[in-house]
Amino acid sequence: MQSTTQKQIAAAFKTLMLNVPFKQISVTLIMQQAQLRRQTFYDYFKDKYDLLAWIFNTEAGADLAENLDYEHWTSSLLDLLRYLAANRLFYRNALATSEQNSFDRYFLAHTKHLTDKVVHDLLQTKNIPLTGAYLSFLREYFSRAVVSVIIHWLQSNRPATPEYLSHQLQTVIEDTISGFLNRVQKEVD
Amino acid sequence: MQSTTQKQIAAAFKTLMLNVPFKQISVTLIMQQAQLRRQTFYDYFKDKYDLLAWIFNTEAGADLAENLDYEHWTSSLLDLLRYLAANRLFYRNALATSEQNSFDRYFLAHTKHLTDKVVHDLLQTKNIPLTGAYLSFLREYFSRAVVSVIIHWLQSNRPATPEYLSHQLQTVIEDTISGFLNRVQKEVD
Repeated sequence: MQSTTQKQIAAAFKTLMLNVPFKQISVTLIMQQAQLRRQTFYDYFKDKYDLLAWIFNTEAGADLAENLDYEHWTSSLLDLLRYLAANRLFYRNALATSEQNSFDRYFLAHTKHLTDKVVHDLLQTKNIPLTGAYLSFLREYFSRAVVSVIIHWLQSNRPATPEYLSHQLQTVIEDTISGFLNRVQKEVD
Repeated sequence: MQSTTQKQIAAAFKTLMLNVPFKQISVTLIMQQAQLRRQTFYDYFKDKYDLLAWIFNTEAGADLAENLDYEHWTSSLLDLLRYLAANRLFYRNALATSEQNSFDRYFLAHTKHLTDKVVHDLLQTKNIPLTGAYLSFLREYFSRAVVSVIIHWLQSNRPATPEYLSHQLQTVIEDTISGFLNRVQKEVD
């Protein structure tokens, strides 16, 4: 349940994010903008990274239920890209300096949830076990690849459409899994 | 041709990089460490990013001739990872904060040179043209994926060996290209 105060803090933060670099935004500044007592911030959020994660989760994260099927996954990726495109300046700012902060990790974990899902769905129809060093590497690789491509896309001045990028990412993941399956099959034959 | 002064500046910078965060290292600090006049720095380098690129290029870049064949490419990747592992603290520091600085771009360009080469070599035997939107996306995707995985690996406290990571990266690129070729072949059939 979101409180009015949470929304008010989030709105103030979003306004600041359009003009002030993220690293220069303090809790004091956010609460001045929100016209609320500074201490009230901590009734709802641990720090500004927590606020960022809350906004992302509230606005984009609801779609990530555990029971996504494959078709749902592809639409989840597209939804995510559309959401980011609609809030391009905000997330460009949030993800501009990769200082290993907690939102970076949150965004990576969110993306890994998505990419893990597609790996799982593409493999389960083939009865390939989801274990082994290569698969564990692959899951890490996909999540980092997708995050890196998304961050670059957010920073681009002439970005591709969400539809285009979503299709390309889906294709490259499918090609990789398909190549992997062919190789495993050949090794079995 | 490297001058003694260049090497002296590089050595001072490397010493600092083991203890001081990269963003806090100034030209003044480097030249104090090197016990040289500050102005001398600019006889050789534009700024500290240029120095970083010079060190990387001098120590790791010589291997990247245009005429790499595929086998050479895989050993180039392994050489790169071995070099980074041997200078882990230095490059962890250099690549820790991704502030879109010129060394990040240089490292990405270097890696893209490597990944482009493998894409080229894997496709040319099949007479697949190296053009089209997907291939252009794929080349960008590979370079960003590999850079992101390498940076994560540099930051890890229990990193895999260069041999292991090199093998996994080679495998995932080969799987992707193989999946792509199978798909294109099916579309032609």
